Amino acid sequence: MKKAVILSSGGLDSTTCMAVAVSQGFEPIALSFDYGQRHQVELQAAQKVGDHYGVKNHFVTPISLFRDIGGSALTDDIEVPKGESVGDIGDDIPVTYVPARNLVFLSMAVGVAETQGASDIFIGVNALDYSGYPDCRPEFIEAFAKTASIATKVGVEGDSLTIHTPLIDLTKAQIIELGASLDAPYHLTHSCYAPTEADESCGQCDSCLLRLKGFADAGLSDPIEYAKS
Amino acid sequence: MKKAVILSSGGLDSTTCMAVAVSQGFEPIALSFDYGQRHQVELQAAQKVGDHYGVKNHFVTPISLFRDIGGSALTDDIEVPKGESVGDIGDDIPVTYVPARNLVFLSMAVGVAETQGASDIFIGVNALDYSGYPDCRPEFIEAFAKTASIATKVGVEGDSLTIHTPLIDLTKAQIIELGASLDAPYHLTHSCYAPTEADESCGQCDSCLLRLKGFADAGLSDPIEYAKS
Repeated sequence: MKKAVILSSGGLDSTTCMAVAVSQGFEPIALSFDYGQRHQVELQAAQKVGDHYGVKNHFVTPISLFRDIGGSALTDDIEVPKGESVGDIGDDIPVTYVPARNLVFLSMAVGVAETQGASDIFIGVNALDYSGYPDCRPEFIEAFAKTASIATKVGVEGDSLTIHTPLIDLTKAQIIELGASLDAPYHLTHSCYAPTEADESCGQCDSCLLRLKGFADAGLSDPIEYAKS
Repeated sequence: MKKAVILSSGGLDSTTCMAVAVSQGFEPIALSFDYGQRHQVELQAAQKVGDHYGVKNHFVTPISLFRDIGGSALTDDIEVPKGESVGDIGDDIPVTYVPARNLVFLSMAVGVAETQGASDIFIGVNALDYSGYPDCRPEFIEAFAKTASIATKVGVEGDSLTIHTPLIDLTKAQIIELGASLDAPYHLTHSCYAPTEADESCGQCDSCLLRLKGFADAGLSDPIEYAKS
């Protein structure tokens, strides 16, 4: 059984990615990051999703760098925007962008892949809903795959690493339809950037708005609970 | 004053890199990694070298990933080879190769550069003495620089990141001559892969042999102490 490393954040996108990888016959190896985000509930969700799929090797690696260097509303004291219309997202680089995040995450996935004997990596980047993030663009993924192949033993031996981005051209609604068709365990996932103290999703931040709009557009109901406002 | 991020390991090469960056008029920002190596003495050396150059922002970031995933004599229980002739180095990928290390290190340097307003990164990779490491090859650095520019705000705004590799074509002797000509503080550096309990260099591992041969070829004496064998 071919192995694949799946970047798993416990959110909708990475969970859909894992569902896709499993449906394609890959044995999933999960890699999650604790990069100093405000919400540890994400990591718990990632663990639950991994358990759901019987993941044997789930690497959870702390990264303090993003908090140390700052520069993002997700790791810093910049206020996470609430209540903006979803249409505004993507015009500029959002304040929730974490510098070099996907570059660092994918690089670490390459290390895991090399030592685990995998030459496939799945990442749930999406160029539509997150067009403001430079490291979610297809040209980045393409360039990275080439670089990673050159950087590793796999490349020296004439093979190459494949970076799978099954969601890159999908709208959030299409992602949710895809996941639902594969029975992705969305009830275990977490998306909110600004959860309450009881870990309930706020229903108002960019990430919640995108998620809720996605379920609505797909004609499905979101199985998670939201805080009463 | 333009800023540059210098990957600093406390060894000869990164110290020479910092000397070069400073001589070119860059304000140095240092980035060091605690990636579970056996020898914390490396990090102490990196700190001393940074202090020598008056570095204001020295990021030291722990990375447990390399130890978690294994696959290298530097982070794993594989024995570090001793007493091999230096000529043997580079024929194959050495056991001291850490999968995806430079890929991860450079990616993190990109995050630091982006948040610190730097668009220059210095890394002391060397394609001659370490030809066995896939991620020390010029084609890797070239591919990475392109990828990193695409991945970040700098690239979106039409600029690009520059990865400086002033040592890439130099022999160890030439590196040492270059550093000596710039008064690099080699007395503060550490290279040994297998130091004694008192943190003395063994004088027998690949890294010590390369270092000693480098000083000998340059006609200079190595200012550090070695363990009596």
